[in-house]
Amino acid sequence: MPATSPPDGAVQMAATDRTRLRRLPEQGSHRTADLHAVLDAGFVCHLGLVVDDWPMVVPTTYGRSGDLLFLHGSVASRSLRAAKVSTPVCVTVTHIDGLVLARSLFEHSVNYRCAVVYGVPDFVGDAVEKLEGLRVISDQVAPGQWEYARPPSARELAATTVLRLALDEASVKIRSGPPDDGDGPDTDLDLWAGEIPLRTVRLDPVADPTLRAGIRPPSHLSDGNPAPGSISRHDLS
Amino acid sequence: MPATSPPDGAVQMAATDRTRLRRLPEQGSHRTADLHAVLDAGFVCHLGLVVDDWPMVVPTTYGRSGDLLFLHGSVASRSLRAAKVSTPVCVTVTHIDGLVLARSLFEHSVNYRCAVVYGVPDFVGDAVEKLEGLRVISDQVAPGQWEYARPPSARELAATTVLRLALDEASVKIRSGPPDDGDGPDTDLDLWAGEIPLRTVRLDPVADPTLRAGIRPPSHLSDGNPAPGSISRHDLS
Repeated sequence: MPATSPPDGAVQMAATDRTRLRRLPEQGSHRTADLHAVLDAGFVCHLGLVVDDWPMVVPTTYGRSGDLLFLHGSVASRSLRAAKVSTPVCVTVTHIDGLVLARSLFEHSVNYRCAVVYGVPDFVGDAVEKLEGLRVISDQVAPGQWEYARPPSARELAATTVLRLALDEASVKIRSGPPDDGDGPDTDLDLWAGEIPLRTVRLDPVADPTLRAGIRPPSHLSDGNPAPGSISRHDLS
Repeated sequence: MPATSPPDGAVQMAATDRTRLRRLPEQGSHRTADLHAVLDAGFVCHLGLVVDDWPMVVPTTYGRSGDLLFLHGSVASRSLRAAKVSTPVCVTVTHIDGLVLARSLFEHSVNYRCAVVYGVPDFVGDAVEKLEGLRVISDQVAPGQWEYARPPSARELAATTVLRLALDEASVKIRSGPPDDGDGPDTDLDLWAGEIPLRTVRLDPVADPTLRAGIRPPSHLSDGNPAPGSISRHDLS
């Protein structure tokens, strides 16, 4: 499979100066479906913000609902609040799919899917909306747990920060397939070329050592239903 | 295993205002050995910079050599050069090790290792130094390929951007082990709690469709020697 083609049809996100794809535009896309697919395949993003004129990048969990991204804001909430009431952020989600090993070191690459979202998030204040945002995040990180585990108390909900970001300005880059030097002079060399796929796998659940005897993992954990972007070890055999 | 203890002994990185660990400091470390271990376990970082007062976060490959980080700068090089000759960056490396499923949704968490490095990188200009930087990156992404594949030509070397960043200001956060509510009142609930470990695995090499017949993958690819942070599928059985 060659590198992803340029977007055709269904171009729904307008390219801004920031999201216009300059380098390797053939790997880029502004299709909403591509954006949603990359976002839905993960649950940890890298949230970038500016603090005292310096960039700051922290990982946090997220979930998507329609054209909204909800971020668990605790890690960055202090910096976000310190920065400004309305502070611009960049949210980047990256999946590493494989090592691309070419005949030349220059053509070595990585197969990946990456979504970059720009915007000014708001802190979700309303308790009902915050609960809904947390549900979206929880469903993306660990499907089934929202219905299974004990819900947040009013105190716990107040202690939790949720950020909401509209998916208005975003771009997607995807590289897949073999190296790009398969039609060049380096094919005359006696060198192997190809891809080493990388996958995230879920191992079997490990019970909390303090778990009372006789409590089994619920079916949504033990019967597959893997975390986004992961596959069960049993799928590999 | 409980969450990582606060650093003891061998504290070699001074905490700056930025890297002082405020939230959940029991998960933090300023030990150089911890920093190196987290950096060495991966090969893709998220590089944050400020462009026109906005944060920008892009993934790129990297390698560590001693107290230096080398970054493959092409993805961000245009923005870096546009930003300023000396532009501050934040480099974040994150490994997601597992889902932490508690009795309460509030105590749900993620097991992870994360390194955050701040600094002002320089573009490596000297050809010999650039080659050395690329070797460091290559050895981290795909050990063995630097000796095996065709070396960069002078033209290819000139077309490649390498950034060098000193590991002067950094912090590490690590969370591991079971959920934190194993000694609270929620243990009375009939709810399972524990961890679902996540691992990155390397699948078997996939040959380029244009590969000439009879060329086998070199031993450093087929005999293990996995990419940092990954394990072979065969290690799982």
